[in-house]
Amino acid sequence: MLGGSCTYISLAASYFTKIGIVAVVGDDFDPQDEDFLASRGIDLAGLERAPGKTFFWSGVYSDDMNDRTTLRTDLNVFAGFQPKLPPSYRAYPYLLLGNIQPSLQRDVRAQMDGVRLVGGDTMNYWIQGFREELLRTISQWDFLLLNDSEARQLSGERNLRRAAQLILGMGPNTVVIKRGEYGAMLFRRDHYFIVPGYLLEQVFDPTGAGDCFAGGFVGYLAGRGIDLSPAGTDRLELGRAVIYGSVMGSFCCEQFGVDRFRTLTRAEIDARFQEFKAFTDF
Amino acid sequence: MLGGSCTYISLAASYFTKIGIVAVVGDDFDPQDEDFLASRGIDLAGLERAPGKTFFWSGVYSDDMNDRTTLRTDLNVFAGFQPKLPPSYRAYPYLLLGNIQPSLQRDVRAQMDGVRLVGGDTMNYWIQGFREELLRTISQWDFLLLNDSEARQLSGERNLRRAAQLILGMGPNTVVIKRGEYGAMLFRRDHYFIVPGYLLEQVFDPTGAGDCFAGGFVGYLAGRGIDLSPAGTDRLELGRAVIYGSVMGSFCCEQFGVDRFRTLTRAEIDARFQEFKAFTDF
Repeated sequence: MLGGSCTYISLAASYFTKIGIVAVVGDDFDPQDEDFLASRGIDLAGLERAPGKTFFWSGVYSDDMNDRTTLRTDLNVFAGFQPKLPPSYRAYPYLLLGNIQPSLQRDVRAQMDGVRLVGGDTMNYWIQGFREELLRTISQWDFLLLNDSEARQLSGERNLRRAAQLILGMGPNTVVIKRGEYGAMLFRRDHYFIVPGYLLEQVFDPTGAGDCFAGGFVGYLAGRGIDLSPAGTDRLELGRAVIYGSVMGSFCCEQFGVDRFRTLTRAEIDARFQEFKAFTDF
Repeated sequence: MLGGSCTYISLAASYFTKIGIVAVVGDDFDPQDEDFLASRGIDLAGLERAPGKTFFWSGVYSDDMNDRTTLRTDLNVFAGFQPKLPPSYRAYPYLLLGNIQPSLQRDVRAQMDGVRLVGGDTMNYWIQGFREELLRTISQWDFLLLNDSEARQLSGERNLRRAAQLILGMGPNTVVIKRGEYGAMLFRRDHYFIVPGYLLEQVFDPTGAGDCFAGGFVGYLAGRGIDLSPAGTDRLELGRAVIYGSVMGSFCCEQFGVDRFRTLTRAEIDARFQEFKAFTDF
């Protein structure tokens, strides 16, 4: 079925701001999936169609949904992907770089001359095997999103508070650490914010939840025109961006794949934001 | 060194309210330890001295401090302990029952005729081997404190939101679930509250942190005269009780054993409470 990091990020972000994607699909990509993305107002000018098959992933989750085992990863047309931005994208002020090879992330960054805020995601594979390249890449970013084990791996430090400070020393002025069912944390030099995870009655499918967090987080910042400059950023707004990220991640888990986004409304999103207020207030 | 559930609970609670303990020690118990407890204003009228050795426990922690292995448990004088309340205790309005055999917890409860609020702790050992007795005991309680794996074991339900609702059906109107470094949750029929764990720069020794949480939680309720009646309880106050529990648990980890409580002040406690406000506000 329809999936992939770019899909989840863009669907989640589309509730907050106008967004355009850069990605590649094969000639097997279902026109109905394209229609679905377009129906959410997502600009598809940067969606490249290449001969061959679309990237494919499958996996199984443990009973408690906290571990997953990959069954199959077929790169297909993604293997030779060289992202090229359509000219119409160059004026976008916010750039979120998905989890690909750091040199490609840097290349996309270089195509956005006037970008106001840039950040992205990475994973253990790049941290371990492409460390120098990754460090060069994130040194140009405003924020870095990663999960707790990746933060420990990148920093070489188990304690997350110290790990975050070490990563802040690598360039980004904001580090966001995702903790799955335990929530998320945002760190800056002079401030940090922590939110517990939303307690779903049932986690149906956690695939894409981290990407939806990213989409909600950046989408909220973009929609509100917030940047992450060291001075003058409203702490409460940064917290709200983390909450909206958490809200989008929680909705993602409620149905299989991207299905929750076929019916989800902004009113439901704001109601869940208010739920976060209610269960964390003291 | 000085330790044990009752010690940690009473030290933590002593910052919030006047407390008295019921416990047994052997003839090897160090008078200086008794002086330390008394110096915190703890009423020791219920501290029984029996011939023999004091209860002893030792264990080792995993590198990440999340798992521990017991090296030795010597029950010693605790083996034959039959708690008897001094008459002067019977007027105390709040009762916290530490983690002992459920029938003994019930027996202590029966000695407090005028008690206004009663709750307690339990553990996997009683849940597994003394289930019926435990259910009879907690059916008389206002609140039950337990950790996430115990909540799953007691309810037979993995999802904590559903697990808590099942436990609320067993009698207590309030269930507090401790999650170690991930924080704590409080559930009632119509409301829940979640707080993430405090991010210590270094966890020196987590022994007793759960007990200090209990002491801070009940101590705050008692100090403020709050009960847990189904109607009319201020939700924000319940949240604050969970925060003070978390604050006391976090301080406990900063030094070995009970040592942090030799210097800790109420001003430091309130400053950390304000830190919780700052890093969870949005």
